[in-house]
Amino acid sequence: MKLEHVPLSAAGNNLVLLTDLYQLTMAYSYWKTGNAEREAVFHLSFRNNPFHGGFSVACGLAQAAEFIKAFKFSEGDLSYLAEMRGNDDKPLFETAFFDYLRNLRLACDLDAILEGTVVFGHEPLLRVRGPLLQCQLLETVLLNIINFQTLIATKAARVCLAAKGDPVIEFGLRRAQGNTGALIASRACYVGGCEGTSNVLAGRIYDIPVKGTHAHSWVMAFDDELTAFRAYAAAMPNNCIFLVDTYNSLEGIKNAIKVGLEMRQRGHEMIGIRLDSGDLAYLSIEARKLLDDAGFPNARILASNDLDEHIIASLKEQGSKVDIWGVGTKLVTAYDQPALGGVYKLSALRNAEGEWDYKLKLSEQVAKVSTPGIHQVRRFHNEDGFIGDVIYDCESPLPDEVVIVDPTDFIRRKHIPAGTPGEDLLQPIFRKGRLITDLPGIHDSRERTKAQLNALHPGIKRFVNPHDYPAGLELGLHELKTQLILKARGEA
Amino acid sequence: MKLEHVPLSAAGNNLVLLTDLYQLTMAYSYWKTGNAEREAVFHLSFRNNPFHGGFSVACGLAQAAEFIKAFKFSEGDLSYLAEMRGNDDKPLFETAFFDYLRNLRLACDLDAILEGTVVFGHEPLLRVRGPLLQCQLLETVLLNIINFQTLIATKAARVCLAAKGDPVIEFGLRRAQGNTGALIASRACYVGGCEGTSNVLAGRIYDIPVKGTHAHSWVMAFDDELTAFRAYAAAMPNNCIFLVDTYNSLEGIKNAIKVGLEMRQRGHEMIGIRLDSGDLAYLSIEARKLLDDAGFPNARILASNDLDEHIIASLKEQGSKVDIWGVGTKLVTAYDQPALGGVYKLSALRNAEGEWDYKLKLSEQVAKVSTPGIHQVRRFHNEDGFIGDVIYDCESPLPDEVVIVDPTDFIRRKHIPAGTPGEDLLQPIFRKGRLITDLPGIHDSRERTKAQLNALHPGIKRFVNPHDYPAGLELGLHELKTQLILKARGEA
Repeated sequence: MKLEHVPLSAAGNNLVLLTDLYQLTMAYSYWKTGNAEREAVFHLSFRNNPFHGGFSVACGLAQAAEFIKAFKFSEGDLSYLAEMRGNDDKPLFETAFFDYLRNLRLACDLDAILEGTVVFGHEPLLRVRGPLLQCQLLETVLLNIINFQTLIATKAARVCLAAKGDPVIEFGLRRAQGNTGALIASRACYVGGCEGTSNVLAGRIYDIPVKGTHAHSWVMAFDDELTAFRAYAAAMPNNCIFLVDTYNSLEGIKNAIKVGLEMRQRGHEMIGIRLDSGDLAYLSIEARKLLDDAGFPNARILASNDLDEHIIASLKEQGSKVDIWGVGTKLVTAYDQPALGGVYKLSALRNAEGEWDYKLKLSEQVAKVSTPGIHQVRRFHNEDGFIGDVIYDCESPLPDEVVIVDPTDFIRRKHIPAGTPGEDLLQPIFRKGRLITDLPGIHDSRERTKAQLNALHPGIKRFVNPHDYPAGLELGLHELKTQLILKARGEA
Repeated sequence: MKLEHVPLSAAGNNLVLLTDLYQLTMAYSYWKTGNAEREAVFHLSFRNNPFHGGFSVACGLAQAAEFIKAFKFSEGDLSYLAEMRGNDDKPLFETAFFDYLRNLRLACDLDAILEGTVVFGHEPLLRVRGPLLQCQLLETVLLNIINFQTLIATKAARVCLAAKGDPVIEFGLRRAQGNTGALIASRACYVGGCEGTSNVLAGRIYDIPVKGTHAHSWVMAFDDELTAFRAYAAAMPNNCIFLVDTYNSLEGIKNAIKVGLEMRQRGHEMIGIRLDSGDLAYLSIEARKLLDDAGFPNARILASNDLDEHIIASLKEQGSKVDIWGVGTKLVTAYDQPALGGVYKLSALRNAEGEWDYKLKLSEQVAKVSTPGIHQVRRFHNEDGFIGDVIYDCESPLPDEVVIVDPTDFIRRKHIPAGTPGEDLLQPIFRKGRLITDLPGIHDSRERTKAQLNALHPGIKRFVNPHDYPAGLELGLHELKTQLILKARGEA
């Protein structure tokens, strides 16, 4: 009943209209002006790692691939567009355009960085190459998918780093942003390193382990807590984590122990207790003592209550005895930064002579000027791990000795000696609209996250003032970009 | 092609597993211990208005009703549950339980506050009454739906208040949390007061006006900006809002005017220009002068770029000449508070004698102690608007002179004189699992929001230190709750 498949949701899989209207009006105008089929290159990237962190974890490619595979305008979509009117009350689109859309089959190439790979600001997570009109129609939904999932996988990786190997269970469904907001967050949390979720449908769809025992309402439904724990133990003796804080946590722990001993006499073992309020450091230490003294050294202590990486790190520092962390709202909504600012920028377009015109968007801030060209990312490493990433133009061969230039501060550079081993991160996923590879499953992507984080220097993974990982433009690309900026400003 | 219908998404409409596992393990244990059919009452409420604001806007009932109507376990759901194992590796659930779930038809009553109604902390937005097991199974998804939509409708109402009647268009799809995160946000934004969205699928599903023209990539696809504007004007002359900041905003405005004059000679009128970066106050004032001087006093100035209610209010104060506000990321993710902390609490349960036992959950903080009873909310008003809301127990008649007690500070009280007009806010929606009313459509709900906000004192609507609207417990209910707290602590 389990399937590694990412639901596109809402109106079934028909999400071709899940886009900004301006993508369709631009598509129409490219078509009208004879530009629809010009070959274009777009890159999807973000500028800064979220949460003031030192790294991000790529996620969302599986759903992006599902979207591209299913891309097709239905008659209902076209009828809806045919109703649209401009400011003269005449139709926005000519009828002939609907024939074009009806027959449209995506013929784009997609290269992408695999899910679970650590990534950094300005790196292309996706490269889309194909007819200008088609690339444009993919923009909004690709951003919607990659922005959110990369954000949440990154948050989960941070929470798991704070937990230092303790299991983290994602509990966020009730406060997630919409139902796919919850489902997709559960998946991204698992890719980022969580061990399970409370979300049963996410478990079913994505094959994620699902966990859960009982809530306060269970305790409240009985005359007293001891009666409630006994009733639960009688009903489901192989799944007992007693929630102890409905009335008084220390009394609750004692009641859990009483019922745990009774269970043991009947041949069952309680899994542990759950703390959901109060001073989790103090209460977990007291709980550990009480459980150990009563003969339950293996009983687990699960803690929840508005946790995030910072609170977990602080509890660890206070010597808390929590074994399992239940993390909800702050994880699945990425509470302290609920959106990643990913962008999707045109960087090259074939001209009438069949040559590439390199494109850039200007801005008063250098960080917001897009980078022209057709990009690949090479990651260099030594025996200790990753040492630097260079974004380079595929049309120019990478020099033997690579110089990486920080895209926001051109005097910060890193030299990579000739012969340093490295791999290209963007991998071919679609060619001419056809999926040409088997994407890794969710379990493989989760393992990839772990391995990738192990190859990062601890200074890059710390939460406060992390070290900047060297990721930037190859010197030749930096110089080309500089020339094009000056030219666009009429200063060249 | 338009339908006022809220997609439940993901695995079609089958969202019965979109719940926390502990709801199912509790349901099983209620069933095993003979408590499944006991009549229970739960209320869904939040404690504090989001964004440090003075009010919230209820939203989500339409989708909640869709969920309840479709509630049914499929064979696939049951097979998945049958695979689950406990800590002894034996099945979590007995087979006979699946027969129970297979035949389960919801028989709950639902009373709810209509979408677009202003609401306040501690007020029940939903009251669910019915068999304990069934009420429990509804908890997570109702919280998921109401928390998010109420949050976003509230944010939208605040943004629209800041815009003081100017149209606000929601642009958030690319950075929303998942695809239904985006679709449902578009709907909630419209209910909260936005005039339209860029999200075409949201427009199609919910009948929301859809807006959009072109992006930077359009301008970049041509050799220069003037050529790009001319090409767009030729292709779609009835939908021209020129985005002017790809290279230099002031030059862009002049190019837009040039093309606007050419269009006018051909019998078309440009709608206006869009500013997406830079100093929006300065640029909009300059744009207004240039447009007026060139004979375009009716051309609109649309502004976007990480806007929220605070930035809009500040731009208004600086005399900006923006006519239309495009608001994205910060609106659809509720950036400064991306989750509403709604809870769903058991408050009454029939005992073996057929009498109601009133229930409460203790906490060290008075704000987190739940309120026992079966609640209704009455809103009192005079000719100027709303003057106070009282939460009262349906089992006790409301006294002639009502005293409202602040649930977090019992010395703050408001007296409502006898004879003050008022209405009950919770309305019957489902009876014994059957929908018994036509819910208002999205356009009616949007009008309701406007009317409700007009009936609120301006001090409650301001963003900084808003006035507290009097909303609290009826004195008798407050006293009953106090007694039960002391009794639960053994201090009565």
